[in-house]
Amino acid sequence: MSRVYNFSAGPAVLPEEVLVEAQSQLVDYKGAGMSLMEMSHRGKEYDAVHTEAVANLKRLMGLGDDFTILFQTGGASGQFALVPLNLLGAGQTADYINAGSWGAKAIKEAKNIGTVNVAADTSKAKPSRMPKAGEMKLTPGASYLHITTNETIEGTQMKSMPDVEAPLVADMSSDILSRPLNFSKFGLIYAGAQKNIGPAGVTLVAIRKDLLERSSEKIPAIFRYKVHAAENSLYNTPPCFAIYLVMLVTRWIDQQGGLDKLAALNAAKAAHLYAAVDGSGGYYRGTAAVEDRSDMNVTFRLPSEELEEKFVKEASAAKLKGLKGHRSVGGIRASIYNAFPRAGVDALVSFMREFQQRNG
Amino acid sequence: MSRVYNFSAGPAVLPEEVLVEAQSQLVDYKGAGMSLMEMSHRGKEYDAVHTEAVANLKRLMGLGDDFTILFQTGGASGQFALVPLNLLGAGQTADYINAGSWGAKAIKEAKNIGTVNVAADTSKAKPSRMPKAGEMKLTPGASYLHITTNETIEGTQMKSMPDVEAPLVADMSSDILSRPLNFSKFGLIYAGAQKNIGPAGVTLVAIRKDLLERSSEKIPAIFRYKVHAAENSLYNTPPCFAIYLVMLVTRWIDQQGGLDKLAALNAAKAAHLYAAVDGSGGYYRGTAAVEDRSDMNVTFRLPSEELEEKFVKEASAAKLKGLKGHRSVGGIRASIYNAFPRAGVDALVSFMREFQQRNG
Repeated sequence: MSRVYNFSAGPAVLPEEVLVEAQSQLVDYKGAGMSLMEMSHRGKEYDAVHTEAVANLKRLMGLGDDFTILFQTGGASGQFALVPLNLLGAGQTADYINAGSWGAKAIKEAKNIGTVNVAADTSKAKPSRMPKAGEMKLTPGASYLHITTNETIEGTQMKSMPDVEAPLVADMSSDILSRPLNFSKFGLIYAGAQKNIGPAGVTLVAIRKDLLERSSEKIPAIFRYKVHAAENSLYNTPPCFAIYLVMLVTRWIDQQGGLDKLAALNAAKAAHLYAAVDGSGGYYRGTAAVEDRSDMNVTFRLPSEELEEKFVKEASAAKLKGLKGHRSVGGIRASIYNAFPRAGVDALVSFMREFQQRNG
Repeated sequence: MSRVYNFSAGPAVLPEEVLVEAQSQLVDYKGAGMSLMEMSHRGKEYDAVHTEAVANLKRLMGLGDDFTILFQTGGASGQFALVPLNLLGAGQTADYINAGSWGAKAIKEAKNIGTVNVAADTSKAKPSRMPKAGEMKLTPGASYLHITTNETIEGTQMKSMPDVEAPLVADMSSDILSRPLNFSKFGLIYAGAQKNIGPAGVTLVAIRKDLLERSSEKIPAIFRYKVHAAENSLYNTPPCFAIYLVMLVTRWIDQQGGLDKLAALNAAKAAHLYAAVDGSGGYYRGTAAVEDRSDMNVTFRLPSEELEEKFVKEASAAKLKGLKGHRSVGGIRASIYNAFPRAGVDALVSFMREFQQRNG
């Protein structure tokens, strides 16, 4: 088979080794005579998968016993509601940073649940950018500060994390496990799996245990982090197969050399692509402020929408798939998550040069 | 490979043909050079899967344009909260039938959200049974009547549906698409996929469109049926691969001849097993009232817990897996959903006779 280069923003490319392994076990999991998908979520085979996934994630993130890993569903959009439902008490205020489309969605949902202070808003900035530390107007005693570490649509990424007193809550859907961070400084981290760590259908939540005590018994049990933590994410049937793939991806990350090594590879991929944009004499124009450029989603424009359309079409014919920017902003978006191979970036850079020559 | 007979209650056996097909396409979906798990949920390949899954489900259930099919996550436990959040207005009452463990859980969650009237309670009955029509104390003008059509743990199944004025809301997790029903008489039907129609990780909701208007804008957008209906379950990234498997299962149901044919096969499987129980001279004792016996989950006891433990262990060695009853009730449970083969029932019946001879 001929594998294409898949620049999709999510669901996104998975490591080929992970897919091949999952395929080999799909019908008959480790000789059990049935698929993992057919097995009880309380049986020993699935338990081994679940336990290893939790352990690998904690190790990769350097989290100790003061943190719990949860597997939930509903993606970041689900967490937009669950975070304030669990952590934002009556009479309290939560601070949110609005630096793009996903931060804005988190804020919209939270406002329906409790009191929200938008501590900084760069969502309309051109070029798109993240707020600087001095721009934030924080609420004293805030329940938490919510950030989106990577704005997938705008192509921006926080290079350093805010240093605040309130628990830091981060939507890391689009850059989770793409770089080392001091993860234990966060209060809660969540991520839909379908960009860097697995398929759609499972959501990672890492939560500092003391915050579990905020889960009110007034909200439905199924929405309470505390309930899921007490049952090790087995309060209801988890999305077993998606969690199995997350486990395989964490093994793959170890095989790549861990987060330091991945971050270096990711930075080099992004730098190569941004250099092609910057070296095009203005033909390709980056849309994000240079200092906030994302290593995950590289966004740029061409001289006209007609050329952008032609670019996407011809790239697709050359097996460079999924380069169309989000429908809300247009342009080109090359998503180059952990599993996206360096050779695909090289192929795109070559294509960009050749396209410019033909259409300059 | 040697496929075992998998009597697990859920996640449960899937059609082998479905697994083989999914395996063949796992790494390279239809020659696209990537897995379906790596594809955008807004691309044409996934759209074809999603559209066919919806169409097949509507056709199999005989639902017209007055119904919408939604794919959600969180299983029945999620719907225990979402149903009252969406359908039970302030100052209104919802009627619930408590006929077992799952009905009881639905009631517990609903009581935290609104006013609940338990219209009938047979949850403590021995033998376990469903309420009779005359036993129900319905609330005039109730928001809805909630039923659990098959109690997986107790081994009971509603053979006829209540004929009531209020919209009928049914948890069909453990017998969805196992028999023809007048599905269009329901207001809302939900089912975790992992028993009869797919893997864990996706929840089917079929809702009558007029009920969508009850979704209050006061609840978070992600919890509103109306929001998901307006976006054809693409408001957030759906669990694409799980939905793909549901689509393959609906194709498989068609290949089996549809719900009438499946129901006949299911009834024959169950009858053969119950006959073995009843014909054992009291060695095996059914735990459900004869008239309410489930065709999906066949529950029975042996003369002692020691013999039950031995039975489960020896059956497992004979490739009859997952026969241990739910930890809350003990005994033996043979779950024989749509995809469970007749030959496996025959093998269990032979094993039961042989076990009794050796341990009678």
